[in-house]
Amino acid sequence: MSGTLYGVGVGPGDPELMTLKAARLISNADVIAYPAPESGESFARSIAAAHFTQGVEELPIEVPMLPDRFPHEVYEGAANNIARHLSAGRDVVVLCEGDPFFYGSFMYLYDLLEKGHSCIVVPGVSSLTACAAAAGHPLAGRNSILTVIPGPLEDAEIASQLRNCEAAAIIKVGRHMGRLSKLIEAEGLTSAATYVERATLEQERVAPLADIPENRAPYFSMILIDKGSRPGQSISS
Amino acid sequence: MSGTLYGVGVGPGDPELMTLKAARLISNADVIAYPAPESGESFARSIAAAHFTQGVEELPIEVPMLPDRFPHEVYEGAANNIARHLSAGRDVVVLCEGDPFFYGSFMYLYDLLEKGHSCIVVPGVSSLTACAAAAGHPLAGRNSILTVIPGPLEDAEIASQLRNCEAAAIIKVGRHMGRLSKLIEAEGLTSAATYVERATLEQERVAPLADIPENRAPYFSMILIDKGSRPGQSISS
Repeated sequence: MSGTLYGVGVGPGDPELMTLKAARLISNADVIAYPAPESGESFARSIAAAHFTQGVEELPIEVPMLPDRFPHEVYEGAANNIARHLSAGRDVVVLCEGDPFFYGSFMYLYDLLEKGHSCIVVPGVSSLTACAAAAGHPLAGRNSILTVIPGPLEDAEIASQLRNCEAAAIIKVGRHMGRLSKLIEAEGLTSAATYVERATLEQERVAPLADIPENRAPYFSMILIDKGSRPGQSISS
Repeated sequence: MSGTLYGVGVGPGDPELMTLKAARLISNADVIAYPAPESGESFARSIAAAHFTQGVEELPIEVPMLPDRFPHEVYEGAANNIARHLSAGRDVVVLCEGDPFFYGSFMYLYDLLEKGHSCIVVPGVSSLTACAAAAGHPLAGRNSILTVIPGPLEDAEIASQLRNCEAAAIIKVGRHMGRLSKLIEAEGLTSAATYVERATLEQERVAPLADIPENRAPYFSMILIDKGSRPGQSISS
């Protein structure tokens, strides 16, 4: 009997925003894998650690923070380790920050393992909705289009998206913060933009983008933009 | 001492996909409000009911399913009821299907109550990521743009979004199913589209859009489109 691979979203940071299902799977797991920096603590592990049982086997996946190329060999090595456990009949839980399929690195492991193994993806609270909750503002109006824009994209692409969107969330802000602020300003959208950092954690920070002077942001930050559709305006359903 | 209003996401349907925080707040609530059909069971209540304590006061908010205009008076009436409890020092939990700020009707109550009262929004697992998990496919590649498109929008708007998007989620499919299928076909995207109905519930249904003949879908359905960016292709981070 082969084991099952569970990709488990552990939510945006507050351990209480894990789902009941995530907590159960983690406390029943034979093996728990998670992304980890080359030194220091794994964020995903820190969210879920209270549910680890004693003696569970841990498989940290050491991903370089700013790779100059995609670290194929890291994911291939991790997939091989995980496959060995699955073949031996052990269930493996992979902890995923936020949600496994919302821009998470779990997709690389899934891509390598889903064909030969039983895989179940357990959705989690994504950073997208956690940041909206922190900002105290709905992501989009009743029938507004919402565009999720990765910050690393090129200037022209981001400017075009900002121009044509109704509401937007810019993710993966990090070292692109200064550049993104300038692009938003050039489109006249600074007053419509809210910056959210480390949503749901103790160090959470929410501010109008205009009040953020920094050119760099932590990896866990987002810029939300709403061009102003008010709730309840449209009547179509 | 005024009470606090909690907008609590209860997730997409599987009661185990509620967060630990939602479960705690619901079991501690003085008053629980939730959207309810004019007859029959409230979906949000059915997800959370196992955590209700005996004697908790319930406030169903009866929203017409297909209003021909926005039902302002329903939300105003509910907001007045909730405000009375808050002013009397009672905490009120409003149950929200999925996430409160991802296209949820909670935004109307929030809009009416946030100025005069203490309001806390507790994010939940959204239908967006629940459908991706059910479909077994990431929502978007590493640095792909994801567009969330409400199904009730006009043909030309939807066609334009489909043409220009990289990955898309069409929400609020319902009675627009037949029209949406034709628009997707006209853009040559049928083979890239997956249909998901009642994600995470027992009656969950996932199929290539090409295999769905119906012209109507349940309210809780979504069409996911991915134009094919493979994970790991882009190296920018």
